[in-house]
Amino acid sequence: MRIAIAQLNYHIGNFAGNLQKMTAAIETARGQGADIICFAELAVCGYPPRDFLNFDDFIELAEESIARLTTLSKDIAIIVGAPCKNPVIEGKDLYNSAYFLAEGRVQYIQHKTLLPTYDVFDEYRYFEPANTYRTIDYKGKRIALSICEDIWNVGNENPLYTVCPLDELMPEEPDLIINLSASPFSYKQAEERIRVIRANVERYNIPMFYINHVGAQTELLFDGGSVVMGPQGSLYAELPYFEEVIQTFDLQEVISNNKSREQPKDKIALIHDALIMGLRNYFGKLGFSKAILGLSGGIDSAVTAVLAARALGPEHVTGILMPSAFSSSHSVDDARNLAQNLGMPFEIIPIAPGYDTMLSVLQPFFGDKPFDVTEENLQARIRGMILMAFSNKFGPILLNTTNKSEMAVGYGTLYGDLCGGLSVLGDVYKTEVYELARYINKDREVIPENSIVKPPSAELRPNQKDSDSLPDYDILDQILFTYIEKQQGPKDIIALGFDEALVKRVLRMVNINEFKRYQTAPVLRISPKAFGSGRRMPIVGKYLS
Amino acid sequence: MRIAIAQLNYHIGNFAGNLQKMTAAIETARGQGADIICFAELAVCGYPPRDFLNFDDFIELAEESIARLTTLSKDIAIIVGAPCKNPVIEGKDLYNSAYFLAEGRVQYIQHKTLLPTYDVFDEYRYFEPANTYRTIDYKGKRIALSICEDIWNVGNENPLYTVCPLDELMPEEPDLIINLSASPFSYKQAEERIRVIRANVERYNIPMFYINHVGAQTELLFDGGSVVMGPQGSLYAELPYFEEVIQTFDLQEVISNNKSREQPKDKIALIHDALIMGLRNYFGKLGFSKAILGLSGGIDSAVTAVLAARALGPEHVTGILMPSAFSSSHSVDDARNLAQNLGMPFEIIPIAPGYDTMLSVLQPFFGDKPFDVTEENLQARIRGMILMAFSNKFGPILLNTTNKSEMAVGYGTLYGDLCGGLSVLGDVYKTEVYELARYINKDREVIPENSIVKPPSAELRPNQKDSDSLPDYDILDQILFTYIEKQQGPKDIIALGFDEALVKRVLRMVNINEFKRYQTAPVLRISPKAFGSGRRMPIVGKYLS
Repeated sequence: MRIAIAQLNYHIGNFAGNLQKMTAAIETARGQGADIICFAELAVCGYPPRDFLNFDDFIELAEESIARLTTLSKDIAIIVGAPCKNPVIEGKDLYNSAYFLAEGRVQYIQHKTLLPTYDVFDEYRYFEPANTYRTIDYKGKRIALSICEDIWNVGNENPLYTVCPLDELMPEEPDLIINLSASPFSYKQAEERIRVIRANVERYNIPMFYINHVGAQTELLFDGGSVVMGPQGSLYAELPYFEEVIQTFDLQEVISNNKSREQPKDKIALIHDALIMGLRNYFGKLGFSKAILGLSGGIDSAVTAVLAARALGPEHVTGILMPSAFSSSHSVDDARNLAQNLGMPFEIIPIAPGYDTMLSVLQPFFGDKPFDVTEENLQARIRGMILMAFSNKFGPILLNTTNKSEMAVGYGTLYGDLCGGLSVLGDVYKTEVYELARYINKDREVIPENSIVKPPSAELRPNQKDSDSLPDYDILDQILFTYIEKQQGPKDIIALGFDEALVKRVLRMVNINEFKRYQTAPVLRISPKAFGSGRRMPIVGKYLS
Repeated sequence: MRIAIAQLNYHIGNFAGNLQKMTAAIETARGQGADIICFAELAVCGYPPRDFLNFDDFIELAEESIARLTTLSKDIAIIVGAPCKNPVIEGKDLYNSAYFLAEGRVQYIQHKTLLPTYDVFDEYRYFEPANTYRTIDYKGKRIALSICEDIWNVGNENPLYTVCPLDELMPEEPDLIINLSASPFSYKQAEERIRVIRANVERYNIPMFYINHVGAQTELLFDGGSVVMGPQGSLYAELPYFEEVIQTFDLQEVISNNKSREQPKDKIALIHDALIMGLRNYFGKLGFSKAILGLSGGIDSAVTAVLAARALGPEHVTGILMPSAFSSSHSVDDARNLAQNLGMPFEIIPIAPGYDTMLSVLQPFFGDKPFDVTEENLQARIRGMILMAFSNKFGPILLNTTNKSEMAVGYGTLYGDLCGGLSVLGDVYKTEVYELARYINKDREVIPENSIVKPPSAELRPNQKDSDSLPDYDILDQILFTYIEKQQGPKDIIALGFDEALVKRVLRMVNINEFKRYQTAPVLRISPKAFGSGRRMPIVGKYLS
């Protein structure tokens, strides 16, 4: 039996586009001699469809796609994910299902059992869990069909769940496992995924075909990396990351050939590639091609510019240099050098006229109150206004360049440097931004060395340095990581050896700035715990604040 | 037996504050001769605690509060909601529980069974459902204890659920039902709540004591309105809306006295009071006392100003009038009259200097490109910048004045009139804003009549009217309500008689503006379906867009 994996980039709600893509993939798989083609979880509608699922109209469109795919299943079987109405009145209205289509008919529908409802996942908001299981016989082979999270409770050892769906199927002695997934990227996920697939394969001693989404859905990035694993746990194939692929595998060959090949999983390289895909798809799926961003001469805007240039082409990314009275001359040079290195257009627009006018407009009201955060924010907001004016007049989307460390502690101006349609680095700690910059510069100096080595500064008052108001980033980032990613509280963090007063100050900064994060752009998610839908915190709370 | 209901306003994560409030309530109840005092769902930590629940430290603080309350239970029983660790490894780590404390000991813990995971609720993200049930015997009476949603599956007729927790308890023949709730306000909720309580009481023929939260947690408003219902379904008491109350009831009196009293439930009056509470608590719980907002002379900012003045005191609300070249003279007069009617301070700051300077700064880049949305947005953003400068310099929180109709179709400028820490009217359709204005003016003209009767205009280009780019609000709001609140798709809406092209245009406007709503302030929720955490839509999608 020959099984094709279609690792494709779907578009949420774009039924016609997704169907067209799947139809072409079926043709390709036929050409590769496949007996079965497998698409990913909820492929017909894209993942995650969120509250679109509440619309009957949306579900009907999904059903129409399934009906159309069914007609295409006459000489090739199709396994595809789609929502499925729950015919029973009790329970949620839908299942998250895998359809097995063959000979022009729906042969079987396996619903998903384990519904992730944590971090970015809200599946129990929409779906009823499966409670019946059946294998599928096709061309002399017996298939155990499962959906994403269903394989993440190996031997019932995941404390979140009480059912292990594959255990339920094993009495029927299947020959192979097929898993349709929509498993979002983090820099650890590909490794985790292979570990879990191997644990399943070693438990059941049959091969597994794991089909993942690829592509970005706003903030959620899907890296692909679909897996074919032999019955002894050897990695027969790991499909490329961040690319659409349709590839057909001979089941017998997978079973008998014990070869193992794995792609490199360098954290920074993965983040680099993931962010580029995230940028490209955000623009592509919205129908935009051009980006704009402010270039400060600092490292965050430099890395963002490089990623955008690589995603969209440098000619489609415009940098705006907006020096102020407090900008060093180096800053403009660094920003200009970067733009020239990249071959991207740039403009220099001083903020002094706007800033001075606004100061004079406000002076009668402010009187002789001293320079404070107001004037700092004013500069940032004039920059935001200039960038948004360009965005409105010429149509590019403004990119936000704030990093995760700043986002965490609220070191940024709402409606100023926090403007933008998409936050590129909002899940990348400052220390990781440096690593990204070094990675980008590994072959030649793309980012001016000076942008990397100079002390970080917002340049909003004379001789300002980030270190005036924040701890050193290598300390700060460790505290933030322990609090945000590891979800440990103050006692645990202090026990790691950090200064108590500092820990409390940092955690307080994180918690009192929830209101800023609430209003910032979606953040491309590259870690296991990003700001956004995966981290839901009260704004008006009084905990560690 | 005498039972006290403590309808209190908790603060999320403020364990010390909540405990202090509960301790005082226990004293009050003792003074009222109560045998039992009942607090609301998750009272010790406030509702909804969201991802704070993931922190062991947070759970330990909740446990400490329970331990402290336990020591206070020597001569009065206490029923109180708190998270409770799940001792079983499998399943979620926590239960959402009601503690029964008496004689200085934890006598029983009843966990919640039905975990709402829809709209604003994410309970299955955190909690394992109960699967065991027991009544409590205290002073000769047998109590069936339940938590919020647990009473919302009367006779198992709610299609969302398959268990009816009170059915499980009835074989033990309880004498009364106590329900601890955290049931957020919408203008329909008080009516719904009484209907559901009555359905339970009529099914079991025993009285129910229903204890609700009161107060606002950012966008979620809790109206209180706790209920005591006699065994025949008569409404023995409905506690006040939007107020903290501690009141003790004699069980025998509740059973034997068939009186029924219900508070009026006028939709607009409820919305008015709810928004005032939402404003007051947002400021109070964040430790702020002053607000600022732009006064355009239009109805939205006028209504917002009135609500803010009533919530915080007019002397704590500053209006900024920022006329442009396109503002009518009436606009300034209307805004000034409003401020004077309210007795609130105001300032007039023209935007022309900032606007003209920015135009001249941008002119070399924009060349002879015609006036378009760029220049409109520029005006709105200069206003936003002025308001934020006042906020930064003097400390008031900026209020957002956008209404739900505008928010829905994206009729507003990101980082301009969409600025603000809290959206007061973002869940109030324009047609409802008019009703609110009429309600406010019912006794005297607070809002200048001209602000109510003149055609709505953003005044961002000459002679602009909202109706230039939007359908009439009475049509628009009906389409929006059917799409947003009723979650009906285009076919259903067109079937109601609306023009097909118009429906498609409106739905498209809603869907393509998800990116704007993502970045706007939390919206005080007064309807069953508000923008924010209760409505989760893809940004990069292609559905009806």
